[in-house]
Amino acid sequence: MKLIDGGITAPRDFLAQGACAQIKNHTKKDIGLIYSKFPCSAAGVFTTNKVKAACVDLSSVHLSNGQAQAIIVNSGNANACTGIQGFADAQLMADYCAEILHLMPRDVIVASTGVIGVPLPMAQITGGIMEVCNTLSGNGSAAVAEAIMTTDLAAKEIAVEINLQGIPVRIGGIAKGSGMIHPNMATMLAFITTDAAVSAHCLNQIMKESADISYNMISVDRDTSTNDMAVVMANGQAGNPLIKDPGSDGYELFKEALDFVNITLAKKIARDGEGAQHLIEIKVLNAADEKTARMIGRSISSSNLIKAAVFGSDANWGRILAAAGYSGADFNPFTVDIYLGEEKVAEDGMGLQFNETRAKEALKEDTVIITVDLKDGSCQATAWGCDLTYDYVKINADYRS
Amino acid sequence: MKLIDGGITAPRDFLAQGACAQIKNHTKKDIGLIYSKFPCSAAGVFTTNKVKAACVDLSSVHLSNGQAQAIIVNSGNANACTGIQGFADAQLMADYCAEILHLMPRDVIVASTGVIGVPLPMAQITGGIMEVCNTLSGNGSAAVAEAIMTTDLAAKEIAVEINLQGIPVRIGGIAKGSGMIHPNMATMLAFITTDAAVSAHCLNQIMKESADISYNMISVDRDTSTNDMAVVMANGQAGNPLIKDPGSDGYELFKEALDFVNITLAKKIARDGEGAQHLIEIKVLNAADEKTARMIGRSISSSNLIKAAVFGSDANWGRILAAAGYSGADFNPFTVDIYLGEEKVAEDGMGLQFNETRAKEALKEDTVIITVDLKDGSCQATAWGCDLTYDYVKINADYRS
Repeated sequence: MKLIDGGITAPRDFLAQGACAQIKNHTKKDIGLIYSKFPCSAAGVFTTNKVKAACVDLSSVHLSNGQAQAIIVNSGNANACTGIQGFADAQLMADYCAEILHLMPRDVIVASTGVIGVPLPMAQITGGIMEVCNTLSGNGSAAVAEAIMTTDLAAKEIAVEINLQGIPVRIGGIAKGSGMIHPNMATMLAFITTDAAVSAHCLNQIMKESADISYNMISVDRDTSTNDMAVVMANGQAGNPLIKDPGSDGYELFKEALDFVNITLAKKIARDGEGAQHLIEIKVLNAADEKTARMIGRSISSSNLIKAAVFGSDANWGRILAAAGYSGADFNPFTVDIYLGEEKVAEDGMGLQFNETRAKEALKEDTVIITVDLKDGSCQATAWGCDLTYDYVKINADYRS
Repeated sequence: MKLIDGGITAPRDFLAQGACAQIKNHTKKDIGLIYSKFPCSAAGVFTTNKVKAACVDLSSVHLSNGQAQAIIVNSGNANACTGIQGFADAQLMADYCAEILHLMPRDVIVASTGVIGVPLPMAQITGGIMEVCNTLSGNGSAAVAEAIMTTDLAAKEIAVEINLQGIPVRIGGIAKGSGMIHPNMATMLAFITTDAAVSAHCLNQIMKESADISYNMISVDRDTSTNDMAVVMANGQAGNPLIKDPGSDGYELFKEALDFVNITLAKKIARDGEGAQHLIEIKVLNAADEKTARMIGRSISSSNLIKAAVFGSDANWGRILAAAGYSGADFNPFTVDIYLGEEKVAEDGMGLQFNETRAKEALKEDTVIITVDLKDGSCQATAWGCDLTYDYVKINADYRS
């Protein structure tokens, strides 16, 4: 597997474009389109929030046949809590896009992100759709990555190439964070393209499993959004033998590459969490089962107290054990070892006389690594989060104005 | 019911004292004792954190016979994650106290709060126990309320008097917050005294129900502590006819007064949450059942995004509906009305053209009242929280130093 340029337009026959539809203001890109020249197998995971944006419901229906060919997405307005009008508007986005691109409306996926409770400005939206449809480009990935940003500081893009029996297969992805991030399916937007030939059923399975170890393992603020979705489209133009089940040639390699893309985007989202100065990586080792490891990892990565302690480089490991304790997972607190970076700070659930300077240094790294060894089995999980800073409070104290 | 002075020493034959045992430093009170001259019916609720401080396990065992006569409590050190030594130290606190006061060790309840993972300084602790035992006072409530403070800015004390068939019965309480506050039984320390005659079984029932609508409905930071407990002791010295079940004379009046005491202390804890500038009160109305109302109330009161929006007086009601949506409760998003103070900002799950000035004013009140009307039944719940401020981050970025 090698990293390549081009993001979501790196895979063959994918085009994209982003533009300013004046939803946010008169200068920032806020509408994006991803388009495959050929029909795709497609799969998605969606927010589990009971309050779902209209586009989430619509796209979930559109993906139910395992097929899609375009994704239209806007930022600046979430089209959530907008009632019947919201559904009509989401449907109109798909219809309008489909008409210009000569597709069936149900082959268009619709996504929105931004302020909740305000109707979509449809005049701007339709103008924007017209513009991106008419300027689709083989180099358009960066423009869409930019168009989906809200409070993100950095656009999030990646592409990789793998070799399936001599055939180069590419996977590209873009994503956005960076507040209301506590995925329970996928709390954010992520769009993945690939030219691999993969059956819809198989793609759906792989994407669900991949979301569970990537997007579903990050947290910025424990707030699960109304609008989140991660969608993958595979157009088969690489020409590899169809991957249709775990027994297919190339299945493992493709899965590994898709996991890498999703995990990379997930980590980018966590690192760019609102106000964040550090990426925090929680490794939970030697758990009795994977679920235990996941629950403990997510609980630690979500704790305000731990996030604030990382911001202040305070080696307050007791908070780590406390967060494991309220995770709901079953484990023995009296066998737990904890490391900050390489420095072992607790053993068998009790504090050690550790080197404060080395522990503090570990907490000052750009990526802070916290390892929790349960010594109770052989399963593991990794979760990611970010520190809680003055800027998180500042950003969210006045998001709308 | 009337408010009276005297806190936990307002009920007859309760004595108390607080002192500086030099656990924290050389000036601040950090050890406290509550003592009844007569044996008490007693009940407690404890943290559900899997990682429990030694004193939590010990006190839970000591309360299993429904009887107690003293509570010894220290701040500055949580005696959590301290292994076998921790249990021995908690036991020694009870033993030492019992010896001086001529009690059985199991009639002494032990509580600790402070830094996790550091062994208790037993020389200071025993010195402190000696001092408070020998200086017990009928006016000692304020000294104990002060001794249990950690990052609390204000001591939390209350006492009420009710009239049970001509007999004045008193209930007093003290509590501490103010970080790691997300009770799942009772995330904090609260100690309640009463001279009511109440059977242990009945007291246990009433206290559990009362904790569910008071301490279990507050959140400062979603971090459930390792050390929390709320304990009530009833010494019967008022001379009222024994309250032994819901059919007993005075049951309703006593329960109502105990609820008032617990809710008042819970609100004081939320208002004094680390860094808080506002108490946030979430009223969930017209739910299909009480559990739904409780889940939604707690989810909203715990949301970082909503807490930050209150800090910034930003009428971002979409976050309120989103937090209801990820609460796990089942409800219809399309019938929900939301009010900030008196201002209706959303109806049937959609935004209204509301008065921004009035909404902003409601968010600037010392107590910010958010009302969520589900229009789906007749049950309700109230939850409390506080805003998320720069100071919360500051306090927790460097708690240990």
